[in-house]
Amino acid sequence: MARKASLSGFPEWLPQERLVELHVLDTLRRTFELHGFSSIETRAVETIGQLLRKGEIDKEVYGLHRLQAEDDPGAPDQDKLALHFDLTVPFARYVVENAGYLAFPFRRYQIQKVWRGERPQEGRAREFTQADIDVVGDGELPFRYDVELALVMAEALSALPIPDFRIRVYNRKLAEGFYRGIGLTDTAGVLRSIDKLEKIGPEKVAALLQEELGATDEQAQAALKLASIRTEDTSFVEQVRALGVQHELLETGLAELEEVIGEAHRRAPGKVMADLSIARGLDYYTGTVYETVLVGHEQLGSICSGGRYDALATKGNRTFPGVGLSIGVTRLVMRILGQELVSASRQVPTAVLVTLANDESWSEAQDVAAALRSRGISAEVAAKAEKFGKQ
Amino acid sequence: MARKASLSGFPEWLPQERLVELHVLDTLRRTFELHGFSSIETRAVETIGQLLRKGEIDKEVYGLHRLQAEDDPGAPDQDKLALHFDLTVPFARYVVENAGYLAFPFRRYQIQKVWRGERPQEGRAREFTQADIDVVGDGELPFRYDVELALVMAEALSALPIPDFRIRVYNRKLAEGFYRGIGLTDTAGVLRSIDKLEKIGPEKVAALLQEELGATDEQAQAALKLASIRTEDTSFVEQVRALGVQHELLETGLAELEEVIGEAHRRAPGKVMADLSIARGLDYYTGTVYETVLVGHEQLGSICSGGRYDALATKGNRTFPGVGLSIGVTRLVMRILGQELVSASRQVPTAVLVTLANDESWSEAQDVAAALRSRGISAEVAAKAEKFGKQ
Repeated sequence: MARKASLSGFPEWLPQERLVELHVLDTLRRTFELHGFSSIETRAVETIGQLLRKGEIDKEVYGLHRLQAEDDPGAPDQDKLALHFDLTVPFARYVVENAGYLAFPFRRYQIQKVWRGERPQEGRAREFTQADIDVVGDGELPFRYDVELALVMAEALSALPIPDFRIRVYNRKLAEGFYRGIGLTDTAGVLRSIDKLEKIGPEKVAALLQEELGATDEQAQAALKLASIRTEDTSFVEQVRALGVQHELLETGLAELEEVIGEAHRRAPGKVMADLSIARGLDYYTGTVYETVLVGHEQLGSICSGGRYDALATKGNRTFPGVGLSIGVTRLVMRILGQELVSASRQVPTAVLVTLANDESWSEAQDVAAALRSRGISAEVAAKAEKFGKQ
Repeated sequence: MARKASLSGFPEWLPQERLVELHVLDTLRRTFELHGFSSIETRAVETIGQLLRKGEIDKEVYGLHRLQAEDDPGAPDQDKLALHFDLTVPFARYVVENAGYLAFPFRRYQIQKVWRGERPQEGRAREFTQADIDVVGDGELPFRYDVELALVMAEALSALPIPDFRIRVYNRKLAEGFYRGIGLTDTAGVLRSIDKLEKIGPEKVAALLQEELGATDEQAQAALKLASIRTEDTSFVEQVRALGVQHELLETGLAELEEVIGEAHRRAPGKVMADLSIARGLDYYTGTVYETVLVGHEQLGSICSGGRYDALATKGNRTFPGVGLSIGVTRLVMRILGQELVSASRQVPTAVLVTLANDESWSEAQDVAAALRSRGISAEVAAKAEKFGKQ
């Protein structure tokens, strides 16, 4: 990151930087494939209708138009094309279109560029690479996949040349059940306030809850107490129970989160934790929610987020529930390069340069290089018999 | 290719088809890296000014606009963004921008999607993947790289699960020198006529040369004789000499083509041939020109083309000559899948499914799967203890 991108928000790497990115991508791919995830790619474009399917787009979308052709004047706006802004919307479409050809539960990974026309800033580009894994079921999807995804991601991130990380897990049912149990029904409203906790502090959040949602002081304090719970093991269950709130949905959420954290604490100790202060994402996911921070780089934001959807996609009366996680590869690579956490041991793949004693020996030198390559050693031949130093 | 793309011109693969594409991409990457080519990627977008730099665009370009923001009204059209239609224009820009950080001759490979809004048809998509290799020099670039690129590409294509192929090589200097030697100076005009040889036959081409370029019958016959020469070894040199034409540029071109074909005949017998009927590309390349057909699939068109540029890019008074080749990966994969030339041996990466005797054994089953993965074996665990058949 010595250089500035020539087009703001569209980073490009030098060859030695690209080697670092390739190492990250190869490592992720290998882990995902070892866990049985299939690779797919979707086209870079979706119809605007598809992108708007879930209602308003809060992302800045790049629309497409052909420079040398008038668009079909009869084509409605929703059939026009735009670049995808994530890999979830395209994946949901892909599942519906190809449901007859896929074996469910379908496990896929997808590593592609996405585009968002947002104002570029540290850790946020307009073109960036995401690496997603999802498992999607036909009609039902056992909860165990929520556990498995946290484990796969902990393994994948552990294999990367990055600082220590924490996957923070929460559960929408737990939050909603708790809020309902204390008599607050506008879950989304409560979450919007809780989301400001880090920025404005607990007192101002309590005031917000009372002013905007009509919460009592007791309700506000209960919501704040819930949001203060963070544990690396399943002791969060006792801490929540100690708050004395009763609700069926709360019990379901507690049991689900306990299953994730219990297994993760055993298999990936210190990597995964229950964090009941997470608010972002809880409004659209329907159960488990994940986000991930690099320890010591928390201000970078989440480098890997996701969760459970009861209906990732629907087709007629068929429903496809899913659970998935998405790594912000470009954000990670920018941080690795910017802080010089690792660097490539050489700038180019070539390990051996076969030099020429004279110009006529080029063909023989090619024989030598071919023998090296047949043993997996990257080799190139000098083009001219210059001084050895120059070659 | 049992399915039709849901958006015409934007093919998407099923997981088992994607495995074939991944195999092709991995094989190309491995060959390129063994030959010392560095990986780079460039952003998907260029400014329209950059795309128009070489004059008119004959490709249909997709322009970009942000759906939720007015473009800066002061931004001139040439600063607006569009999707790249090849990887050569972006690479030339990358070389100029990063010249201070690159070691020349710079060898790079680049495997990315490109977009062209052309009417989709067999073998031609609107979104497709190209795999390019180029060597670019600072000021000068020894001719031997023209030889080397043909050898690298012959090796890369030989490693793919595709039918036999022929890399056809020609040389702009040879053609131009010959035409000048017989008194025809409008090289581009002659090439436009020769390009129609396969479609309309030699008699009509001769008529075209006489009517449109004012050639004599003798000149037209000489041009046609040149275009009839195709040899797998260097015997084309004698055949050209036998036509009795003298020109300095012709001699240079003959020597260059002889060097490529001579070395290729030795190192990749039967894969590379001199073909003096090639016309496409000769008008913008400045020396060697390559194109490649699959034997028995000639109507598919060239699956790998390229050539030498005296000035791939310029920066002030610095010139960067280059020679490169570009594989149409999507076109190849469409053909492989469409003709069922190969197929993946299994549909998913998973080699072992660890089943559950009862629901409580999931965590133990994860231990078994982890042991398999640590030995490089892709494994997944059933989510529920159903009947074994169902698992």
